[in-house]
Amino acid sequence: MPEFLTLLSPDEARSLLFRHLPDLQSAAEKLETHLALERVTAAPVRSPHPLPEFPRSTVDGYAVHAGDTFGASDSLPAYLKVIGEVPMGDEAQFTLAPGEAAIIHTGGMLPEGANAVVMLENTQHVQREERKERGENNNSPGSCVRGRCALEIEVLRAVADGENTLRVGEDVTEGQIVIPAGARIRPAEIGGLMALGITHLRVATKPKVGIISSGDEIVHPESDPRPGQVRDINSYTLAALVTRAGGAPVLYGIVADKLAALKTLAARALTECDLVVITAGSSASARDMTAEAISSLGSPGVLVHGVNIRPGKPTILAVCDGKALIGLPGNPVSALVVAWLFVVPLIERLLGLPIDRPRTTLMAKLTINIPSQAGREDWVAVKLTPRLEQSGSEITGWLAEPVFAKSNLIFSLAAADGLLRIPPDATGLSAGEVVEVVLM
Amino acid sequence: MPEFLTLLSPDEARSLLFRHLPDLQSAAEKLETHLALERVTAAPVRSPHPLPEFPRSTVDGYAVHAGDTFGASDSLPAYLKVIGEVPMGDEAQFTLAPGEAAIIHTGGMLPEGANAVVMLENTQHVQREERKERGENNNSPGSCVRGRCALEIEVLRAVADGENTLRVGEDVTEGQIVIPAGARIRPAEIGGLMALGITHLRVATKPKVGIISSGDEIVHPESDPRPGQVRDINSYTLAALVTRAGGAPVLYGIVADKLAALKTLAARALTECDLVVITAGSSASARDMTAEAISSLGSPGVLVHGVNIRPGKPTILAVCDGKALIGLPGNPVSALVVAWLFVVPLIERLLGLPIDRPRTTLMAKLTINIPSQAGREDWVAVKLTPRLEQSGSEITGWLAEPVFAKSNLIFSLAAADGLLRIPPDATGLSAGEVVEVVLM
Repeated sequence: MPEFLTLLSPDEARSLLFRHLPDLQSAAEKLETHLALERVTAAPVRSPHPLPEFPRSTVDGYAVHAGDTFGASDSLPAYLKVIGEVPMGDEAQFTLAPGEAAIIHTGGMLPEGANAVVMLENTQHVQREERKERGENNNSPGSCVRGRCALEIEVLRAVADGENTLRVGEDVTEGQIVIPAGARIRPAEIGGLMALGITHLRVATKPKVGIISSGDEIVHPESDPRPGQVRDINSYTLAALVTRAGGAPVLYGIVADKLAALKTLAARALTECDLVVITAGSSASARDMTAEAISSLGSPGVLVHGVNIRPGKPTILAVCDGKALIGLPGNPVSALVVAWLFVVPLIERLLGLPIDRPRTTLMAKLTINIPSQAGREDWVAVKLTPRLEQSGSEITGWLAEPVFAKSNLIFSLAAADGLLRIPPDATGLSAGEVVEVVLM
Repeated sequence: MPEFLTLLSPDEARSLLFRHLPDLQSAAEKLETHLALERVTAAPVRSPHPLPEFPRSTVDGYAVHAGDTFGASDSLPAYLKVIGEVPMGDEAQFTLAPGEAAIIHTGGMLPEGANAVVMLENTQHVQREERKERGENNNSPGSCVRGRCALEIEVLRAVADGENTLRVGEDVTEGQIVIPAGARIRPAEIGGLMALGITHLRVATKPKVGIISSGDEIVHPESDPRPGQVRDINSYTLAALVTRAGGAPVLYGIVADKLAALKTLAARALTECDLVVITAGSSASARDMTAEAISSLGSPGVLVHGVNIRPGKPTILAVCDGKALIGLPGNPVSALVVAWLFVVPLIERLLGLPIDRPRTTLMAKLTINIPSQAGREDWVAVKLTPRLEQSGSEITGWLAEPVFAKSNLIFSLAAADGLLRIPPDATGLSAGEVVEVVLM
């Protein structure tokens, strides 16, 4: 076993790695907006025009001159003549004169002369009797304007200039940055881009992550293993993790524990990819060979050999001529945890995602004590079960039960819902403690 | 405006909808395991053979008879003869006799006659001097067994039967259900399946979700809108949401606010899809028309017209001949929030995902008071900013600031990180409260 005399914590190791990769940045490519879900913007997106592009009503009601409703109330309504209806999807073919109103629907374009909308529920049609009281009759010329036989309405509440409308540019103004660079495209961004007619978008190219599985005992999953052989797990768990993180996995297959073969394959992967991940054979000598192969590929070479973490201590972090190489332990669970701690952040950095963005977790109550060695960061797989309220129907919280398994078997991880971090300065966690679980 | 006299809460409305869809279940299809990430198993997966298939070492060291190490300690080591090395990926060509050991690497197959492994660090080579003291010399025939010139080791710690080994079937036994039905495939599941040589898998077919955008004012995003027209947002935000949830969106385009046209298109979508979503035109009359069209498509028809929620009150939930139809408000933000509350759970139900599975959120401190009407469930878009420790480098928590925008503009949602629920029984949330934010 190589001696790990002064092991860095995962955070320290990652910082050291990133300090040697100052200019990590994926290339960019143009994509149709509707295909850009989960991709990351390569440049800020500016609005080509204001939104909305025309003044719109936000309610169903009557477009009015706000001034015409001044002081209107239930007891002292304002009387307005309705000269027409604003069609949806078109501009009105009339202009409001003082004392006039027009029927308008939510989203309709304010007609010329209108600057506010009275909600339908704050109006009522003038009744025959009232109009008679006011000395009019239904067929009086006064209720017809410019050839249209108009309703008359009572406005029961005054509206202010702009009330119940959207001004031009109220959502976004022309030239405004509407999406910054390094933003992950969600449904809302796709909607905003479509609203602006931005149907193509520059996004970061998916970083190519080369994956090499090494080990004399490893065979392809389609194979029937002979005694002593096991099927390749790591190529596929890592490919899935890379895909999830927004990268493009490139599988280089299985290489035997032979230095020359490993060097050749790793060199090729390093040329073709943005980042290379090698899972070492599981023995100490195979791991040492991985470190030797990586060292030969460029400078500065191996930065970290061994991290103060469980699982995953025999991790290798290297930078060769500006590209990162990560040597992962051969154990599938260790490999997955370490990849999640080092490979995913590298992919996110390549994509341009900010490091300090919010991440979700689940709070759960721990069922048993978990001891941990002070100074070492532990990641423990846990299974979550719901805590139900007395009626048994509503979930009031979660219980986290560690999935302990000898030597981190792959199905112990498949049986787990998430991972729990025990920080280096802790000596364990206690039963009943509320802990933060990262779902896998 | 139609009157919503007795509006159901979102939870009540969803329960009512689900009660009318007792047999919701997507079809199944066969897929290559390495392509099944994020898909949902359609049937339980059973292990075709135990894992591991042979007894393996979990450490680097020496394969031994545990009994040969009985009582061994630093002061009283057990002496064993090393008769060979177990090759990685193959079975040993020898059998351990009493008093014998074999070099073995992590993952190596235990040789016949061995039942435990002593860790390398708990052994040492017998020194020339010691061997001399014991009256031997290095070339004595005693150190060579069956033609192999063997080392002799001191074992400094006793091992128990099975120690530092994996038994056959210790991870999974033959015939064991290793993944239940209705499980979302993660990297760990892919790894487990590959370990078992299961390279194909039955998963739930992606539910087809038909999406119809209605409204006289709506034009295709590629169009140059005339005054009064706006580009289609909802088709694309909903398609993205459906994709994220594991469904397959089918876009039926834009239909004008004409009853016959809407009926025809909705009927076609209902035939071709598992679930249909119609975003109504934004006016009250257009929404009523959507309800009328939906009612005509099958029984029992509209179950819910109006939900006690903001945004999203004018939501329509319907079941027509065993399939769900959801009428969403035309406002893009309302449509997205309501789709997330009703369409996503329907997709998950179709996929067979359990409802009570764990979900992650982010806890944040609210920056200002948010009032809310008692009895109504509110969903408020919030922007999250990190709270930094004094040195300014480490994030100690998050601040949630509501993104208030008139009429729920699409870019207010694009500017938000997540949604915050104000339950029906609350009259608001207070500044400083720690709230649970769902990331979008």
